Amino acid sequence: MSSRIGRMLSVQIFGESHGRAVGVTLDGLPAGLKLDMDKLNAFVQRRAARSAIATGRREADIPHILSGVWEDITTGQPLTAIFENGDTHSSSYDFLPDRPRPGHADYPAIMRSLGNDDLRGSGHHSGRLTLPYVFAGGVAMQLLETEGIRIAAHVESLHCGEHDIINWVDPDMDALFECHKRAVPTVDPAIGEAMYQHILDAKAKQDSVGGVVECVAVGVPAGLGAPFFEGVESVMANYLFSIPAVKGVEFGAGFTAAAMMGHGYNDPYAMKDGKVVTTRNNAGGLLGGLTTGMPIIARAAFRPTPSISQEQNTVSLSGKCDTTLKVHGRHDPCVVVRAVPVVESAVALALAELWLERRATYPISKRLEDL
Amino acid sequence: MSSRIGRMLSVQIFGESHGRAVGVTLDGLPAGLKLDMDKLNAFVQRRAARSAIATGRREADIPHILSGVWEDITTGQPLTAIFENGDTHSSSYDFLPDRPRPGHADYPAIMRSLGNDDLRGSGHHSGRLTLPYVFAGGVAMQLLETEGIRIAAHVESLHCGEHDIINWVDPDMDALFECHKRAVPTVDPAIGEAMYQHILDAKAKQDSVGGVVECVAVGVPAGLGAPFFEGVESVMANYLFSIPAVKGVEFGAGFTAAAMMGHGYNDPYAMKDGKVVTTRNNAGGLLGGLTTGMPIIARAAFRPTPSISQEQNTVSLSGKCDTTLKVHGRHDPCVVVRAVPVVESAVALALAELWLERRATYPISKRLEDL
Amino acid sequence: MSSRIGRMLSVQIFGESHGRAVGVTLDGLPAGLKLDMDKLNAFVQRRAARSAIATGRREADIPHILSGVWEDITTGQPLTAIFENGDTHSSSYDFLPDRPRPGHADYPAIMRSLGNDDLRGSGHHSGRLTLPYVFAGGVAMQLLETEGIRIAAHVESLHCGEHDIINWVDPDMDALFECHKRAVPTVDPAIGEAMYQHILDAKAKQDSVGGVVECVAVGVPAGLGAPFFEGVESVMANYLFSIPAVKGVEFGAGFTAAAMMGHGYNDPYAMKDGKVVTTRNNAGGLLGGLTTGMPIIARAAFRPTPSISQEQNTVSLSGKCDTTLKVHGRHDPCVVVRAVPVVESAVALALAELWLERRATYPISKRLEDL
Amino acid sequence: MSSRIGRMLSVQIFGESHGRAVGVTLDGLPAGLKLDMDKLNAFVQRRAARSAIATGRREADIPHILSGVWEDITTGQPLTAIFENGDTHSSSYDFLPDRPRPGHADYPAIMRSLGNDDLRGSGHHSGRLTLPYVFAGGVAMQLLETEGIRIAAHVESLHCGEHDIINWVDPDMDALFECHKRAVPTVDPAIGEAMYQHILDAKAKQDSVGGVVECVAVGVPAGLGAPFFEGVESVMANYLFSIPAVKGVEFGAGFTAAAMMGHGYNDPYAMKDGKVVTTRNNAGGLLGGLTTGMPIIARAAFRPTPSISQEQNTVSLSGKCDTTLKVHGRHDPCVVVRAVPVVESAVALALAELWLERRATYPISKRLEDL
Repeated sequence: MSSRIGRMLSVQIFGESHGRAVGVTLDGLPAGLKLDMDKLNAFVQRRAARSAIATGRREADIPHILSGVWEDITTGQPLTAIFENGDTHSSSYDFLPDRPRPGHADYPAIMRSLGNDDLRGSGHHSGRLTLPYVFAGGVAMQLLETEGIRIAAHVESLHCGEHDIINWVDPDMDALFECHKRAVPTVDPAIGEAMYQHILDAKAKQDSVGGVVECVAVGVPAGLGAPFFEGVESVMANYLFSIPAVKGVEFGAGFTAAAMMGHGYNDPYAMKDGKVVTTRNNAGGLLGGLTTGMPIIARAAFRPTPSISQEQNTVSLSGKCDTTLKVHGRHDPCVVVRAVPVVESAVALALAELWLERRATYPISKRLEDL
Repeated sequence: MSSRIGRMLSVQIFGESHGRAVGVTLDGLPAGLKLDMDKLNAFVQRRAARSAIATGRREADIPHILSGVWEDITTGQPLTAIFENGDTHSSSYDFLPDRPRPGHADYPAIMRSLGNDDLRGSGHHSGRLTLPYVFAGGVAMQLLETEGIRIAAHVESLHCGEHDIINWVDPDMDALFECHKRAVPTVDPAIGEAMYQHILDAKAKQDSVGGVVECVAVGVPAGLGAPFFEGVESVMANYLFSIPAVKGVEFGAGFTAAAMMGHGYNDPYAMKDGKVVTTRNNAGGLLGGLTTGMPIIARAAFRPTPSISQEQNTVSLSGKCDTTLKVHGRHDPCVVVRAVPVVESAVALALAELWLERRATYPISKRLEDL
Repeated sequence: MSSRIGRMLSVQIFGESHGRAVGVTLDGLPAGLKLDMDKLNAFVQRRAARSAIATGRREADIPHILSGVWEDITTGQPLTAIFENGDTHSSSYDFLPDRPRPGHADYPAIMRSLGNDDLRGSGHHSGRLTLPYVFAGGVAMQLLETEGIRIAAHVESLHCGEHDIINWVDPDMDALFECHKRAVPTVDPAIGEAMYQHILDAKAKQDSVGGVVECVAVGVPAGLGAPFFEGVESVMANYLFSIPAVKGVEFGAGFTAAAMMGHGYNDPYAMKDGKVVTTRNNAGGLLGGLTTGMPIIARAAFRPTPSISQEQNTVSLSGKCDTTLKVHGRHDPCVVVRAVPVVESAVALALAELWLERRATYPISKRLEDL
Repeated sequence: MSSRIGRMLSVQIFGESHGRAVGVTLDGLPAGLKLDMDKLNAFVQRRAARSAIATGRREADIPHILSGVWEDITTGQPLTAIFENGDTHSSSYDFLPDRPRPGHADYPAIMRSLGNDDLRGSGHHSGRLTLPYVFAGGVAMQLLETEGIRIAAHVESLHCGEHDIINWVDPDMDALFECHKRAVPTVDPAIGEAMYQHILDAKAKQDSVGGVVECVAVGVPAGLGAPFFEGVESVMANYLFSIPAVKGVEFGAGFTAAAMMGHGYNDPYAMKDGKVVTTRNNAGGLLGGLTTGMPIIARAAFRPTPSISQEQNTVSLSGKCDTTLKVHGRHDPCVVVRAVPVVESAVALALAELWLERRATYPISKRLEDL
């Protein structure tokens, strides 16, 4: 079962890159959620390939909602949306299944399916599947907004090195939302422009670059999540690592924490306007798998796009010998930019899951007077 | 549902640090697995606190197997093992629930449970729960060994900075197994000794340090995992982030990949002794969420132990004011060393899950002659 | 999460009666299953309303497979099929939401969704949803046929009383398959003809009738299922009770067993052609939740169709007063006949689930020489 | 995965009849539920074998709560309780694995496990496992009572034929609770006494009898459940069929409905004291898989106890030949009486699951003014 997740809010993704359509079913959504369809479409379009640094494949990406929504309000029944596939060039993939592309899912997918998987355009393994994923994320985001939760991501760094720094204790959400209008969404426009140029350079060299997307969620109440397997990090990482090309996930100080000492890492508590806060946020809003009420800070590291037009060493599976391959399909030289709303979707779907779980297990009674 | 995971092999952890017992139920284990009980106990003991750099709490950690094993062979029914709690000092925790410890689960756990959670010794949030986790991991490891899969981890780095480097293409498994006999398990003994001294220094300063554990799995066939939500990274990260104190997870080049270009990241394929291999392993044995047959390389970043004896700023929840706290419980100045078998367990449980899934979905027919 | 089932083979149904389409996603299907599309379509058509005893709504019921099948072979990725809705008369439902129909889901659905559910044509609660269900069942059936498992159902009884009896120890499968060509599928044609006349009589009286469908599965190996929650009866009943209008499920002697004594109920074992068999089959092929290798005998009791054109007592939800209602939509006077392939689908999906589970947990080693 | 159930409230049963202990873990229980331990123990004791019509095996059946409860209040963490096994006679089972008992799980369990299952005292397949099941049910019942839901069952009929009739529209709950004090719990004491005598007669003949348990749940709000796979009937049947020896499950008129006409089956709505009710309850409180607010009526048919002391025909698996068997273990001549609290537990666990689901998916907004 490759493409379903969620104990509370089931997300079932389906479709292949060159098949009839890709789509998603959300089951477990409460009834009575009024969807802002313009906002949802605008969110989906943030993922679309529209600029010089994106793939040449152009798709309308219009959702057809088949079920679960009536007069723009969720019915409480399964919500299915599909997106038709249009601009496909299957002939570009005639090197498959013989010569698997380095860095792609081709070889393990052939081994898994014993040759039965449809790998045209990478099939179900394609980044095209992040389209229904983002649709689902957009719905989850609107659900969370009814609770005052807001989510925004930016490109934190790219191969070139500079970091787009934000305040983890009190992030400027407006600046984050604003940056989504730019070609490379960074809070500091200069950094984004440098990144843009860097991606164009990589493209010119028939190469690709990786990068890091950082996502912030504010307004999340304390006490979501659980110790162990449904800890926020565990659940969120499951969604984040499902995004093709993600090879690392961290929260708050993350890997940097491994090089810190306790006195410098622990976030001290303080009262502020009658509310418990921490005066720094190395924990990324998460302690013991639970939300503290502070902003959640999650980062995902993306490897460089595997499809590059340079000649690469591979094997011929039929000939059982070494050979080479030049890939001529249309690909993004850097998936990181288009991945920004995908990362937001992962965070939104994880939080929707945990928020619904919280509704289910909300305590029967208080134990302490002062809570 | 805080403490259960697994679609194929259900792992249900239970217990509190100062309750009667901690334990685990494994459901979904095939019948007929002959358990080497000595080996299993030895594995569990690797996690125990036995040296000067570990907590003063001393427990026998003997598993009582209640069900699912008959004459050392699995019956195919739920396997439950419990470990009694002995050496507990609940009075050390009388600052709770009023003054939550910075960096601990106390505050969010109080908010989640509205004061009903048992937080003595950190309760269900305690590192003590990694004991049944390791038991479960040890069983999973013996299951995987019947397929030729072997798993070993080491301390890759500590706060102090030096890295214990291993070969990702052809790791020396014997050296890894050998290093588990040392106080700090590093392949290079000198690095481990420096780390040991470093931890003692932190302890002397009433402080703590973090670090990174790296785990290798070899002998894993190509084709395990799936795109998206049951991708190997997604599943494994779920288990890894469930380990208390883990704040980052990466595979292969991981976060470093974000700073690479495609031509340098993609692992070229080659034929070697009639088998498809890659000549480097930046992918950590994982492409598109699927295993390639190369060694799996997973790393988990541990934050410094939250419990330190220095005075820290916190709040009084009853007084709704700022205050300070000095914690006097017994704690590890660095959990990284004892976490090595816990990380191995996470990797083993994830691979057992995926291997059982592979059995279930093994293709009905081959499509290609040459597979 | 209303409409998903399956730990091994996930079945996600979606759609509303008067929405754009109804459909299903199967996730967890092994790759390499060659689908006989003609056979699959013929199976789906067995459910269609085609005779004088069926609803006047006429739909083409052509599946559009969006994903998961390539050149008629399953890829191992999610298989989604949709069926467009055509012949809908939403205006027939303008008594809703004010005056709920007795015997229908209207009232509880309004209460569940606080008025947000789309109840036109009964919405997601409609028998129309058994269309994708049957598609899924047809795929499961073809999967099971690769293992030699065959499934067939018949109308065992109707309101009028006569019972269509089959041999539980050695059922005549050819006769069962043959009977599916008749208007009312009974092994004894005379009983079916009497039933047909009986349904027409009920229709003439603006009334409806219930009945019992009995399903047989042969070729099922011994040892599928599990004690307790994944017992064959537990799992199969979950699928069977999901069929709208089913109010009772029993296996083998079923409720009759409650009036038997042990010596008469227990099925004695005997060796036959080197195989362990039972000489009668009161257990319906199921002991302790596990298959014995004997034919599985499952029965589902269907209540009479709730929609009848006679005036019935109901309430006005807005007026908070008693009132009456005459329903003028198009409905089957007896769903039992069209339900026969739906029951077969439930049995097939349950067995596919259990057979995949069996693959996953197949024992690592044999314990006894003589097995 | 044989012995776990529940998407919202996970119930994991473990243990074997002649192993160290049997037990259960409940995960997903809200924090802050004050448990009445005396009431819980009294409920568990209702299942115990205490009279002349019960097995000779005598067990104390005292729960040891290992986790998840602190000062009698649930913590929100996994609740594990175990019951030690004491009075076991494993030598009574030395006919196994060679000569499987007719009507028992022996043969399919051997086939499933390839001989690895521990079948002493029927192992994990034993009715002994209903002990932790009843403990879990008792906890669920106390959870539901905080919402005003009350559950009670009685013996509806036994082999001998007379039926203990209750009012489905307005059941006398006090009479049902009262009847639990009698040896055979029937509302009509005379029927229970006749049943008692009947069981003694069967015992004297070395035989056994079956029967039907009927369970009522009142106070359940309208709108619990869902169409299809999480319909109340589907979910509840899953729990009910998990009880060993259950071979049929029905709701309301159940199988009788199959012989009714629509006008006689449909329950008319009426307003009563400002509340929507039905004037009869053929639906058993369930329409379209959803609760209507009327009493839920569920019935489970139990086959006669398989273990009888008469000589029965079986096979020798080693000799591959026919043979006979006389079973000398201690067994109940009729499990129906002790099954009454087990059926109540199944209903309670199913309703707890659905009630928690309802909390999670409670609508975001109302659509209609008049709801």
